[in-house]
Amino acid sequence: MLIEQIHEPADLKKLNIKQLKQLCDELRSEIINVVSEHGGHLASNLGAVELTVAIHYVFDTPVDKLVMDVGHQSYAHKLLTGRYQDFHTLRQKGGISGFPQQEESEYDAFTAGHASTAISAALGMARTRDIMRGDNEVVALVGDGALTGGMCYEALNDAGQSNTRMIVVLNDNDMSIAPNVGALSRYLTRLRQSKGYIAVKHGVRDRLEKHPKFGEPLYRGLSKFRNKIRSLFVDDKFFSALGFKYIGPVDGHDLRHLIRVLRRAKGEDKPQLIHVVTQKGRGYQPAEDHPVTFHGVAPFFLESGSRKQEGETASGKVVASQLADMAESDIRICAITAAMPMGTGMDVFQKAHPDRFFDVGIAEEHAVTMAAGMASQGLKPYVAIYSTFLQRAYDQIMVDVCRNGLPVTFLIDRAGLVGEDGETHQGVFDLSYLRSVPGLVVAAPRDVRDLKKLVEISQDYNGPMAIRYPKGCEDMGPGIQSQRRFSIGQWELLSDGRDVMIFAVGRMVPMAMQAAIELMGKGISVGVVDARFVAPMDMDLLRRKAAGVRLVVTVEENVLAGGFGEGVLDALAAGNIGVPALTLGVPNRFIAQATVAQQTAECALDALSIAHRVRQRLSEIGEAQR
Amino acid sequence: MLIEQIHEPADLKKLNIKQLKQLCDELRSEIINVVSEHGGHLASNLGAVELTVAIHYVFDTPVDKLVMDVGHQSYAHKLLTGRYQDFHTLRQKGGISGFPQQEESEYDAFTAGHASTAISAALGMARTRDIMRGDNEVVALVGDGALTGGMCYEALNDAGQSNTRMIVVLNDNDMSIAPNVGALSRYLTRLRQSKGYIAVKHGVRDRLEKHPKFGEPLYRGLSKFRNKIRSLFVDDKFFSALGFKYIGPVDGHDLRHLIRVLRRAKGEDKPQLIHVVTQKGRGYQPAEDHPVTFHGVAPFFLESGSRKQEGETASGKVVASQLADMAESDIRICAITAAMPMGTGMDVFQKAHPDRFFDVGIAEEHAVTMAAGMASQGLKPYVAIYSTFLQRAYDQIMVDVCRNGLPVTFLIDRAGLVGEDGETHQGVFDLSYLRSVPGLVVAAPRDVRDLKKLVEISQDYNGPMAIRYPKGCEDMGPGIQSQRRFSIGQWELLSDGRDVMIFAVGRMVPMAMQAAIELMGKGISVGVVDARFVAPMDMDLLRRKAAGVRLVVTVEENVLAGGFGEGVLDALAAGNIGVPALTLGVPNRFIAQATVAQQTAECALDALSIAHRVRQRLSEIGEAQR
Repeated sequence: MLIEQIHEPADLKKLNIKQLKQLCDELRSEIINVVSEHGGHLASNLGAVELTVAIHYVFDTPVDKLVMDVGHQSYAHKLLTGRYQDFHTLRQKGGISGFPQQEESEYDAFTAGHASTAISAALGMARTRDIMRGDNEVVALVGDGALTGGMCYEALNDAGQSNTRMIVVLNDNDMSIAPNVGALSRYLTRLRQSKGYIAVKHGVRDRLEKHPKFGEPLYRGLSKFRNKIRSLFVDDKFFSALGFKYIGPVDGHDLRHLIRVLRRAKGEDKPQLIHVVTQKGRGYQPAEDHPVTFHGVAPFFLESGSRKQEGETASGKVVASQLADMAESDIRICAITAAMPMGTGMDVFQKAHPDRFFDVGIAEEHAVTMAAGMASQGLKPYVAIYSTFLQRAYDQIMVDVCRNGLPVTFLIDRAGLVGEDGETHQGVFDLSYLRSVPGLVVAAPRDVRDLKKLVEISQDYNGPMAIRYPKGCEDMGPGIQSQRRFSIGQWELLSDGRDVMIFAVGRMVPMAMQAAIELMGKGISVGVVDARFVAPMDMDLLRRKAAGVRLVVTVEENVLAGGFGEGVLDALAAGNIGVPALTLGVPNRFIAQATVAQQTAECALDALSIAHRVRQRLSEIGEAQR
Repeated sequence: MLIEQIHEPADLKKLNIKQLKQLCDELRSEIINVVSEHGGHLASNLGAVELTVAIHYVFDTPVDKLVMDVGHQSYAHKLLTGRYQDFHTLRQKGGISGFPQQEESEYDAFTAGHASTAISAALGMARTRDIMRGDNEVVALVGDGALTGGMCYEALNDAGQSNTRMIVVLNDNDMSIAPNVGALSRYLTRLRQSKGYIAVKHGVRDRLEKHPKFGEPLYRGLSKFRNKIRSLFVDDKFFSALGFKYIGPVDGHDLRHLIRVLRRAKGEDKPQLIHVVTQKGRGYQPAEDHPVTFHGVAPFFLESGSRKQEGETASGKVVASQLADMAESDIRICAITAAMPMGTGMDVFQKAHPDRFFDVGIAEEHAVTMAAGMASQGLKPYVAIYSTFLQRAYDQIMVDVCRNGLPVTFLIDRAGLVGEDGETHQGVFDLSYLRSVPGLVVAAPRDVRDLKKLVEISQDYNGPMAIRYPKGCEDMGPGIQSQRRFSIGQWELLSDGRDVMIFAVGRMVPMAMQAAIELMGKGISVGVVDARFVAPMDMDLLRRKAAGVRLVVTVEENVLAGGFGEGVLDALAAGNIGVPALTLGVPNRFIAQATVAQQTAECALDALSIAHRVRQRLSEIGEAQR
């Protein structure tokens, strides 16, 4: 196996083209194997194998900087940079991260999390080189999906004027996670379809390679010929207007050609953009056929590509089908997502009401302000975005939606601890940043029944509202006994207690119930309140139930800083209710990849830990009073 | 006066071209007069007079929707839509807002605050029209400065593919607030300079108009001729690539031509972009000569254009010159701003170290991630952005800077209550959203001396740090007695007290001192702590000084939700310190325009209000204990 001999990218340079191709095959096998076992990002990683090999072959990393956008294409890179032995620990606790991480390897020039950041980071590195009078290269590897994000444009606009030497490699697989949207995507398609490129694309090569004797040499000849004819490259206008020299389109699975193009680009003293065309899922038939399904996958059977376990019911699907039903009789209802129709479950709504569904690309800012524009004219828009990505639109939520009191509803998926995606994707900040926005209702259901009720309530609520929930319905609790109805700001007393009153939010409610049972077993009388509205709070119930107990406890799946617990403390202080309090939540640090259960335990938010900490605090209070 | 007869835009349609021109002159006079008296945005508003008149002449607002980006060009619009009588109350408490506001007039289709939002909002309105089967027009008026923001691109990319009928009017005055940056700006310049447009630009017209007898008719003839020849319009590629039909460039001061172009665009069934070229400051010589100075101005003398009062010392200037000094011997230091070199004072740094200064345009997201890229390679970047605009980069601060622990320092100007810009520009959320970010040091100085110390400290601090301060040094306190030195996380006990301990932040420290003196006069023993670090907190001093008093008070110029006060409460709860507490800050709502002093009083954060509220709470506690 060649792959075992590659300890660092420098080892690549000893290989010839034939060996490099073999290496690509080995990389693909390794990626497919590990992902089939543990899950991960598959299709995009398979598409970027040759491109990654070519980049490491031509450039001298880590002196030359390779900045990967997001990192859905970083697996081959990881395998080539000393992480082959550990690659089977991908996305597991203590294992290899699914994204580039500076602390994992010096070859990961920048820790990527959210899309569209690579050109900005790379420009910062290029400018640093210029200030420090260095001479290294800086390469940003960006997917065409990321290009729908405004940050990319901001960075191109800045870089293009700067004349700073840098190379942007656009990995164009015609998809972000879902099929790409936006006018620029169409423009890229036009570039791809232009005459020069078409003539020598896979089609031709594939047919030639079926005749191994003469096909390969013939193809090589053709390739050489093509590369001599510069005019075969397309005359782009878009990137040129932004000050970039455009090179492409280039077949992203033609190693020899890729290497030639990258070599030519290396050392040129201006900003360049190389447009590389790749195929998502390349080399694994099920992923080639279903690139969206195989973007991010749970463990699957190698042969068939089918999932090893049935997935849980996605909360987003539940919400989307309810919304689609509501929209039957309510023409005001429309849905917006930012490049995540599948992930957020909104494809269900899309199918039912295609004319009222809008996928705007990786453009959370635009999504939110467009929703504000719609709401200002009488529509009832629902914006479905993951908690971590909605951070991108904090300002728009504040200034465009809530400042104007507009009835936009935010459907915040992947709230709380998210598991394997790790630090950059945790949904544990939304309660804090949303609580700070005046006039925004912030809700978190404890189970599916309440999730549905909240969506129902939102229909008639004429103001901004946010509903946050975890990926899977089962992540929330089973239906406990429940109020038939509730209105905005109304909490629910699930059980009463004399010693301790726990106020819990979202999927911490069932945890709190378990903890209460545990504590009751020790003779402590514990009540639980479902504080399903983080804003506004149920001041009456809070003050009534907090007064008189020995300890008030808050539990939330959010960082403590600025979170629900602090809000409760302020409400108690304002109400002159002096009672010892224990705020439980995610500690104020970034939580690394692991399973959700492991992360919950790490944050001491599982039922036993909650019970333990309550007992500990009770004993501290007891001692203090003695 | 014609202006007195215009009660709504429909009245415009009764006027002929000559009268419309006279009206433009009157609008200019009114704008110059009112702004010279009260201050406001001048140069951009003067540039947009003819364009505004032409839009209202051609379209049927408010049925047709006019969405203005930011609103630095909204004054003529306000004067034409029934607000002439009240216009002298511009930017004053209870008066006309300096920005479009939905609640002020039905003609203000969307409340604008931060830049680059208009195309998103307008697209939302256009899509609403399509869903509702309406037939109104939607026009977004966008400055070329706003086009440097990524949101604009996200919206263009979405709109261009949608084929939704809408018109984007690009008001290109070759400036945002400062002269524009970025490759697209250069591209627009190339369009402006292309042959067709140049031939009939102001130059020609101005010369022709000097011969009133034959000049005007000749010019009209020339204009007509030009308009017949469509090919004189430039063949754009950039906007076309994004799916827009490009029309322009058009002379933005040629009313007749503007009207003709807008009429032709009206009713066309696709997204169109009309490129209008205007002159910032048009019609007022000092503003034409110094468009940056006259972007936003304090009251000035009409004749000379010079300011009526000497301004206070800008905090930003102090920081920038200190930074420039530090950079003399520290090559790592560089500075980044987002289209605000003057406003943030960073032009001082720019002059001293042009090669280490970067103005990235209205692109806060890119600014922050680029800084992260620089810091990852050993530079020490300082990012100077107003508090309210930094909200745009919350995610980048979190994921790109702080997740990676990178030594980027945020210089946050216009923190706290900002006065006349009102609701959309308040800097009263930063303590909340920054506190929620793990690992970020958040500091607020009480006076200039501490501001300088903080900047000094930041130089050797190897992690992310934010320093927030108000516009003017005098807004902070006079130097009280002071520690010679302090380190990160260290607070300062300014005076000790037995009954009450006040923990205050930033410019609330001198307020707290005054309040303490007031209270001491009533026989209450009050101590004051300068809590200059909101994160991390000085737990030792906090717990030591909070234990034993009758009341702990926190005072901050930030919303209460998620702010400093709540953090203090949590620290006390965690330390098992049971003491009544009073958290004072900005209430959780948007604070409207007024002077800073008026807003401070409205929030009950002036010294007398603080003293009053402390006494009130003390008496409540007394009663409760009785």
